[in-house]
Amino acid sequence: MNRRMILYVIGFILAAEGALLLLPAIVSLIYLESAIWSFLITAAVCGALGAVLLLTCRPADTSMYSREGFVIVALGWILMSALGAVPFVISGDIPNYIDAFFETVSGFTTTGASILNDVETLSRGGLFWRSFTHWIGGMGVLIFIMAIIPNLSDKPVHIMKAEMPGPVFGKLVPRANDTAKILYIIYIALTGLEFLFLLFGGLPVYDSLVTAIGTAGTGGFAITNSSIGGYSPYIQWVVTVFMTLFGVNFNLYYLILVRQFRSAVSSFELRVYLLILATVTCVITVNILGTCSSPGEAFRLAAFQSASIMSTTGFSTADFNAWPGLSRGILMVLMFFGACAGSTAGGFKLSRVIILFKAMRREIRKLLHPRSVSTVTFEGKPVEEATISSISNYLAVYAACLLGIFLLLCLDPSAGFEENFSASVACFNNIGPGFGGIGPTSSYSAYSVFSKLLLSLGMLAGRLEIYPILITLIPSTWTRR
Amino acid sequence: MNRRMILYVIGFILAAEGALLLLPAIVSLIYLESAIWSFLITAAVCGALGAVLLLTCRPADTSMYSREGFVIVALGWILMSALGAVPFVISGDIPNYIDAFFETVSGFTTTGASILNDVETLSRGGLFWRSFTHWIGGMGVLIFIMAIIPNLSDKPVHIMKAEMPGPVFGKLVPRANDTAKILYIIYIALTGLEFLFLLFGGLPVYDSLVTAIGTAGTGGFAITNSSIGGYSPYIQWVVTVFMTLFGVNFNLYYLILVRQFRSAVSSFELRVYLLILATVTCVITVNILGTCSSPGEAFRLAAFQSASIMSTTGFSTADFNAWPGLSRGILMVLMFFGACAGSTAGGFKLSRVIILFKAMRREIRKLLHPRSVSTVTFEGKPVEEATISSISNYLAVYAACLLGIFLLLCLDPSAGFEENFSASVACFNNIGPGFGGIGPTSSYSAYSVFSKLLLSLGMLAGRLEIYPILITLIPSTWTRR
Repeated sequence: MNRRMILYVIGFILAAEGALLLLPAIVSLIYLESAIWSFLITAAVCGALGAVLLLTCRPADTSMYSREGFVIVALGWILMSALGAVPFVISGDIPNYIDAFFETVSGFTTTGASILNDVETLSRGGLFWRSFTHWIGGMGVLIFIMAIIPNLSDKPVHIMKAEMPGPVFGKLVPRANDTAKILYIIYIALTGLEFLFLLFGGLPVYDSLVTAIGTAGTGGFAITNSSIGGYSPYIQWVVTVFMTLFGVNFNLYYLILVRQFRSAVSSFELRVYLLILATVTCVITVNILGTCSSPGEAFRLAAFQSASIMSTTGFSTADFNAWPGLSRGILMVLMFFGACAGSTAGGFKLSRVIILFKAMRREIRKLLHPRSVSTVTFEGKPVEEATISSISNYLAVYAACLLGIFLLLCLDPSAGFEENFSASVACFNNIGPGFGGIGPTSSYSAYSVFSKLLLSLGMLAGRLEIYPILITLIPSTWTRR
Repeated sequence: MNRRMILYVIGFILAAEGALLLLPAIVSLIYLESAIWSFLITAAVCGALGAVLLLTCRPADTSMYSREGFVIVALGWILMSALGAVPFVISGDIPNYIDAFFETVSGFTTTGASILNDVETLSRGGLFWRSFTHWIGGMGVLIFIMAIIPNLSDKPVHIMKAEMPGPVFGKLVPRANDTAKILYIIYIALTGLEFLFLLFGGLPVYDSLVTAIGTAGTGGFAITNSSIGGYSPYIQWVVTVFMTLFGVNFNLYYLILVRQFRSAVSSFELRVYLLILATVTCVITVNILGTCSSPGEAFRLAAFQSASIMSTTGFSTADFNAWPGLSRGILMVLMFFGACAGSTAGGFKLSRVIILFKAMRREIRKLLHPRSVSTVTFEGKPVEEATISSISNYLAVYAACLLGIFLLLCLDPSAGFEENFSASVACFNNIGPGFGGIGPTSSYSAYSVFSKLLLSLGMLAGRLEIYPILITLIPSTWTRR
């Protein structure tokens, strides 16, 4: 284990966080808020810690393997959240540190689960930082660092692999650093586009910006207590469209950039994604017709909530807790799927679902014709057996973690079955609101300190696709070579 | 597809059901009940249908493949349930046919989910038949037929494979028919032993017999409204021990019979099974201490409910719905595991859980050391990669079915999230009672006709481990050679 290398990269992470904390400080400066000091102090601490690590841990040997990648990502994200929570405590926006930590983990992991019952009392800087963590976590902090610092390591791909979600990691261009740069350019461009569309709809600059960065990371923190529900139908539709767009594999946007339109549009995962969204929207529209004033409203609410859950964003324009059982059931099942791999969305990822489905079909064919031999294909290419087996293993790990989180959450006497189960699902899949007492109109504040830390770990495991957290927790990772 | 062969074997199934229906008729005769006619009429119908099929469909070609095995098992079980429900309707015990069908499917699949709110009004014959379906379904009706009729097919192993649960099918002795015979001898002997133990505890002959056959199939239908709760602590302990015993792989009893004690006791699956049961019992005992009059009572209730859920029996001696959240959470998670493969229990089966867990561990090792090569072992033998991948596929199919059942159940406006989710889990894993409105003190009667049929299909899919039902529903099974 190259410990110096790990500490060195974590130094970069902390330095980057220090620099990024200057943005909410600027926001607080504009609004002349005392919260500015909370950001400046934390930025200074992050900068100092980062500088110490960068100066003392410069590794002579920059070699690294996947193990180092996993540990860097896991520790980096935990430290980043631990320090990112500090401004909330200093400014008094969230006085309790555990609550602030939960909120920050929820931010970075793009979950959007909140312990706040009244977000409107927060400072402007605090609300911006809260949503900005979504934006940082959406594409990944290490991918950000690699985009700006080339030659960080001889094998940056190990870090990217550990932070990028999805069953297979495909570089867009031969060099990992260039891939990171392209991804961030697309990310910034799409965020800017949403910002302009929101601005065009009459939303103030601040609201547009915070909503755009919250959507981009498929996060879900909003700045009003009614989430997006208080905005105009136009704004709601813009957010619906962009939630859907940020759930699409970013590789497809790259294909569009290099004018390979046909390859982009023929993506099977994209088609399945849009088909599921359209179907679910139609079914829910019909199902909630009776609770809405017009079919148009029902359609808008159905489309928004479906896109929000499937892209694992977690914004809301309606209290889906009060919807009929069928709609609630559909949203519950949708929580497991997630959107496309290589997007900013969480969850199990559609490409995994599709490949598993094809593997199932092959298994049935094999039961009927034991001597038949066939290959599973995806996006026109054969899928390696090793990939199929690693996806199957991921399903087993995923199910085990989910049941484990649910079981430990049951230690908390304050919540019922529906809360505990949906809290596990909503946090682990980085969605945000769940059902029952943790629905879109309520918060996670009633949970105990233990439950909040457990769910924080669950959110991190979900965002980083389990293995980095699991591997860091295994003692043998640290002892054996 | 050898359709004549399929119909011929189904003829045997119906004839066997006709013969087995004479047993409840004898019970009704002893108690001088008019219900005797319902059994005699149905037995005659079964016998006649069976005879027609046997006479008209004698196949010239007795060859069969796995496809035929799956279809025979699926159609056989559905028909058997459809006819087995008739006596309840004729006798007026369960006047509504859909309700009677649900109850009979629940019986044969050893689920024990009931639509009856007051079982004590049923005829003695009806209650016996209800529990006897557990006993028939526990070991399997086709295995019964193979035990008594040798040379039914040139490849009886295809039928056995389709009906026997578990990830790998291992014959005890070279000939499938002899394996079937040995399994039934062990099954009858264990049932008889429990009957004697119950009789010794002062239970009447009828109660002892019905309770013994209900335990043997890990079914769960009881003959009093308080399930086993009204019986003495001694009786409750006997049932606890036998529920546990019927959740053990029957191969181990065969090993004991042939005096290979050491191999039997060294079974890893057995050890994990007993370890989980012991741990869960201890945790629940401590957790429910406050709700019980003594630690002894808490221990007895905890042990009973744990054994009942883990062996997928579904008897109860306490309303676990009223227990603290942790105990309820543990029971909920236990519902997924099931007991050992090759037992009469339902669920996912422990051996699958163990093999998946070992495959996960290997996957993590591979992530850390990409070039490492290692084999997963189970019970001292290496597990083939094909077996691991088929277990992983089974997990995917299992999860997809469970989510599908849950989603369709949400169409029913009468029940909430907790009912619908636990009903899906409890029926699909062949347990019986769930949480909320379908807990141990209530019934499935409030569900709609559609939901009852859906859950019936779920119970059948769960008992037959999905593929037979799935394959029979696929059109291509019927068209292509």
